[in-house]
Formats: sequence, C-alpha cells, structure tokens
Amino acid sequence: MQVLENWSQKILRVALVLFLAVATAFELQAADPGWGIVIHGGAGATLKENMTAEKERALQLKLSEVLNTGHTILENGGSSLDAVQAAIRIMEDSPLFNAGRGAVFTHEGTNEMDASIMDGRSRNSGAVAGVQLIKNPINLARLVMEKSPHVMMAGKGAESFAAQHDVKTAPAEYFYTEPRWDSLQKHLKQQNLKDPLETERDHKFGTVGAAALDKDGNLAAGTSTGGMTNKRFGRIGDSPVIGAGTYANNATCAVSATGHGEYFIRSVVAYDISALMEYKGMSLQKASDYVINDKLKKFGGSGGVIAIDKHGNVAMPFNTAGMFRGYVHEDGEVVIRLYNN
Amino acid sequence: MQVLENWSQKILRVALVLFLAVATAFELQAADPGWGIVIHGGAGATLKENMTAEKERALQLKLSEVLNTGHTILENGGSSLDAVQAAIRIMEDSPLFNAGRGAVFTHEGTNEMDASIMDGRSRNSGAVAGVQLIKNPINLARLVMEKSPHVMMAGKGAESFAAQHDVKTAPAEYFYTEPRWDSLQKHLKQQNLKDPLETERDHKFGTVGAAALDKDGNLAAGTSTGGMTNKRFGRIGDSPVIGAGTYANNATCAVSATGHGEYFIRSVVAYDISALMEYKGMSLQKASDYVINDKLKKFGGSGGVIAIDKHGNVAMPFNTAGMFRGYVHEDGEVVIRLYNN
Repeated sequence: MQVLENWSQKILRVALVLFLAVATAFELQAADPGWGIVIHGGAGATLKENMTAEKERALQLKLSEVLNTGHTILENGGSSLDAVQAAIRIMEDSPLFNAGRGAVFTHEGTNEMDASIMDGRSRNSGAVAGVQLIKNPINLARLVMEKSPHVMMAGKGAESFAAQHDVKTAPAEYFYTEPRWDSLQKHLKQQNLKDPLETERDHKFGTVGAAALDKDGNLAAGTSTGGMTNKRFGRIGDSPVIGAGTYANNATCAVSATGHGEYFIRSVVAYDISALMEYKGMSLQKASDYVINDKLKKFGGSGGVIAIDKHGNVAMPFNTAGMFRGYVHEDGEVVIRLYNN
Repeated sequence: MQVLENWSQKILRVALVLFLAVATAFELQAADPGWGIVIHGGAGATLKENMTAEKERALQLKLSEVLNTGHTILENGGSSLDAVQAAIRIMEDSPLFNAGRGAVFTHEGTNEMDASIMDGRSRNSGAVAGVQLIKNPINLARLVMEKSPHVMMAGKGAESFAAQHDVKTAPAEYFYTEPRWDSLQKHLKQQNLKDPLETERDHKFGTVGAAALDKDGNLAAGTSTGGMTNKRFGRIGDSPVIGAGTYANNATCAVSATGHGEYFIRSVVAYDISALMEYKGMSLQKASDYVINDKLKKFGGSGGVIAIDKHGNVAMPFNTAGMFRGYVHEDGEVVIRLYNN
C-alpha cells in the first residue's frame, strides 16, 4: 500500500507540473498580442482645461478613424510602414493636430514642418525638417528613405527634392487654422512682456505619431509635427531626429515621441528605450516607463512616447497631464485615451 | 618554535597581501590617464594612396598644433567645452579638413556646413545644419547651446540667429579651395555616366571633431563638417545630430564621429557607445570597438569615432583604411596617427 500510495502521489505531482507547464505556455501565448498599431496625437500640460466636450468627441472620432485605417491595412497583410504612414497622413490632414494642416505658426507666421519614418526591418529611415507647403510631410519623409541615399533633408533643399518627385503641395491658406494663428498672436504679445526665452519654453504640444507591428513581424515608427508655436531660427525639434523622436528596430521595438523636443534630443529618448530592452533585458513597458517617468522627468523634460515591441505589446507612458493616444490589435478593439486614465 | 614559525608565516602572508593591495591600487591609479583631449580630422577609404609626404607633414603639424592648444587650455584649468571648441576652430580654419574653410562643395557649388557641441555635465547641446558663409560653425553651435532655448537650428534661420549674435561670416571666396572644387567637378562629370545615387555614395570623408576631459572631471564633445561633396537637397548628415555624430555625458564618455553619416544616424553611433558603457558595463575601448568594428561594419557603415571616458581613457576605432587622429594627456606627449598603425 505504501508503495502504491507513493506512486500515485508521484503521478499526481507529475500531472500537476505538466498541467502548470501547459497552462503557462498557453497564458504566454495568449499574452502575446501580435500585430497592431499604436498612435499619439500629442502630449501636453494643460489639455483637460482647454478641452470642450465637442473637441473631445472630434478627437476621439479622428483617433478611432486613424486606428481603424491602420487595422485594415495590417489585417489585409499590409506593411507596418504603410500602416504608420497612413495613420500619420490622416492626422496631418486634420486641423486637430499640430502637424500638416494644423501645424502651428513660426515667429514669422509661416508653417515649418518636420517628419520622420523608420523601417525596423532594415533600419532604413527618412526625415525632413523645416519644410513649407508640403501637404503631407510624412509622405516626403518616406520618399527620402526610399528614393534618396540620404536620411535627412532640410528646408528649400528638401522642398526641391519633393518637387522632383511630384509631392503634393498646398497653398499657405490650407495651413491656416484660427486657433493656431491666435496662439501665435498671444505668444508674440507675451513676448513683449517677458523674457523671450521663457515665452518659447511656454510652448504647446500636438505632434502626431504612430508605431506598428505587421503580420510579417516587421516594426515601423513615424512622427510628424509643426514644432513649437513662435519658433524661430529654423529650429529643429526631436521629431525628425532618428533616435530622439522616432526609432524602429525589429530586434526590439518601434517608438514615436511627443513633447519638449530639446529634452528628447539631449536624452536620445526613442533609441534609449530600445537600448534598455536590448542591453538590460527590460520589457517595453518597463523601459519606456523608466525613460519617460524617471530619466526624462528628473532631467526636466515633459512629454511621452507610444511604442510597440516585436510581440505586439504596446506602451504609452507620458509625464504630462494628458496625451492623446490609442491602439488596436488583431481583435479590432479600439482603445483611446486622452488624459491620465 | 612551531608557534613562532606559524606567527612569522602569518606576518609574511599578511605583508604580502598588503603589498599586493598597495601595488594594485598604484597600478590602478597609474592606469587612470586623467584630463586630456582626443581629436580627429576625418576617416576615409583611400587616404594613403592620395597622400603626399608634404600633405602628411602638413596634417601632422596641424594636428599637433590642435592638440597643443587643447592641452594648454586644459592645463590652465579651462573647460573641456573650451578645449573642444578651440580644437575644432583651428581645424575649421585650415583648408586641410572638410569643415569651415575647407568644406566640400554641394551640388550647387555652395558650402553648407553642419556642426554640434555637447556639454557632458549638463547634457546641454547645440547644433547647426546647412549654414553658409559662417566662418566657424562650431562657434555658432556653442551659441545655440548657450544663448537659445533650442538645440538645433538649420539654414537661413540659423544664419539669422548668427547675425543677431554678431557671429563672424566670411565671403564665399574664403571657402574656395581648389581640391574641393575639382572634386565637385569630378563628381558632376561622373554623375552623367553612372547612377547618381551610386555617385553620392562614393563620397570622401574629412569631418573634424574633438572630445575632452578637463581637470574638473567634465566631459565635452564636438563635431564640424562640410558634409558630402555634391550633396543635394539640404542633406543633413550625422555631425549635427546629437546621439549620432556627437554625444557627451559625464557619467560615461564624450564621442565625436566621422564617416558615412546616414549609417551613423540610423545606428545612433555616439549614444550607443555611451549606452553600452552604462547598461552593459563595457569599457570605452570595448564599447567603441564593438560599435565601429562589429555593429556598424556588419550594417555596411564606414567610418570611425574618437572618444574619451570620465577617467581620461581614449579610444579611436575606425573601420576604414585610415583616420586622422591624435590625443594628449597631462604629460603633454602628443600622439598622432594617420593610418592603420
């Protein structure tokens, strides 16, 4: 009897271990979200106070349209690059965001836009800085990546490259939006009262970006912005800087940033998240949280990132009052958040 | 007797251990080189063949002047930022390098220069891209760092910032050097024969840079370049991109890069060396060797870096046939190398 009991106990124990192993394997598989897209429409300090129910609804509708478009592309076997580009293009076409049509005004009353895109498979990338009258800067960034030996082009030079490739332009009126113009006027008035450097620091955010993982396991990320209201001197922020505002690498993750660009450049934010994953073995969530809510915050930089890793896990940390953000995976369930919830 | 012998053995053993401990401490101290400066005048694929004894001598004299100037500044208690800026300024003033006076010509026959500088103490940084007729782009980069809330300025905007701060300009003739002009003509001719993209890849290097550690333990790095001969479309390389061409952080190291800029941007070269030191505990030598001779090489990128860590150790890896480089420490012994030796 003693022997039999020992045997039955052993069998039970082995069965339990086997069951746990299989259950864990299933759980791990279920925890891997697979292909999907994550987007942002900017992070800011005083978002909720400035928001009306109407604007909230408009934002939610637009972000939902963006995510559904990305989802359709990925579901049909499209590339993460195509999904990212399409997502950003829709936000550039909307006056709701500080990119493309809704770009903020420079000190001179013009719109100078920056954008970048990166392919996680080849780590190819394209970026444009300070371009005017380009309807969709993200399209131009992709052309720089694919049709030139360069990564980054700026100003008139980038515009003449655009002209050679028949990139769609729009007249200055297209980029005129009343709230952005009023914002510049307010900044210009304030500037007469206080230190101009202080005024320039008192900026608003609204950059857009997207990061995606496609069915083939390829990651991509992109970012587009009008920069800072009242910016001067051909200022370039982090959005067109590979490693700072945008980074993608199939080995780790794809990241797009939004916030006070100078701090993001000095902290090499997007690549730092990838480096922490690769060199320290951190998860995407842990690495991006650490970079945004610890390192960047202590450094004095405000903003956030959206990111997706090679398993489809998404992270959307920010250290401001809010960040317009959302994601969708294979199941099509669209998740959208505006504030700290 | 037995007791006495045991005691004398014990005393001997303790004395030996103490001796070894003190010797190790001295060796460690002796191995820490302390303050110093390391510089480069560009890396390239076909340097030795194109070199005359006269040009070699001119290069060695100039690099020696640069290192001695840096040494004097550091010896007198000057900051690493001042030493880096002065070192780069001398190379910008010489027609021997592709920066400042010796900048290569763009496709349009102009000189569009990029430069950046970074302070390892505050991680403050300044960069300019695509500026014309600025005598010393490195001076302008430092002004951007210290006199503006921005990190990066480009083109006409950066030039108007320069004008506001009375930055010295020079007429177009100042930047005319016969070899650079001939090089452009050669490129333009070749372009009619082969694929223009291929021609643009067939570039020459000659960027300059410096990295230093001062007596206060502060690191700094800077880079300046004319970019690629025959470059078009407002192309921006890695030199003005913080994280790619320049990076400095008192916690790790200061780095300046030279090479095929597009690959350096996509690999975030300068920051990657710092990240490997911080996250993987690699030494400066190991981290910079790994990035240049393993990661970058496999990726298809050619070039090199010079770097100095917080202890004053220097590294100068490159994966091309040669890199003009040198360093000096407290003892004033100037070391200069041109090729793979």
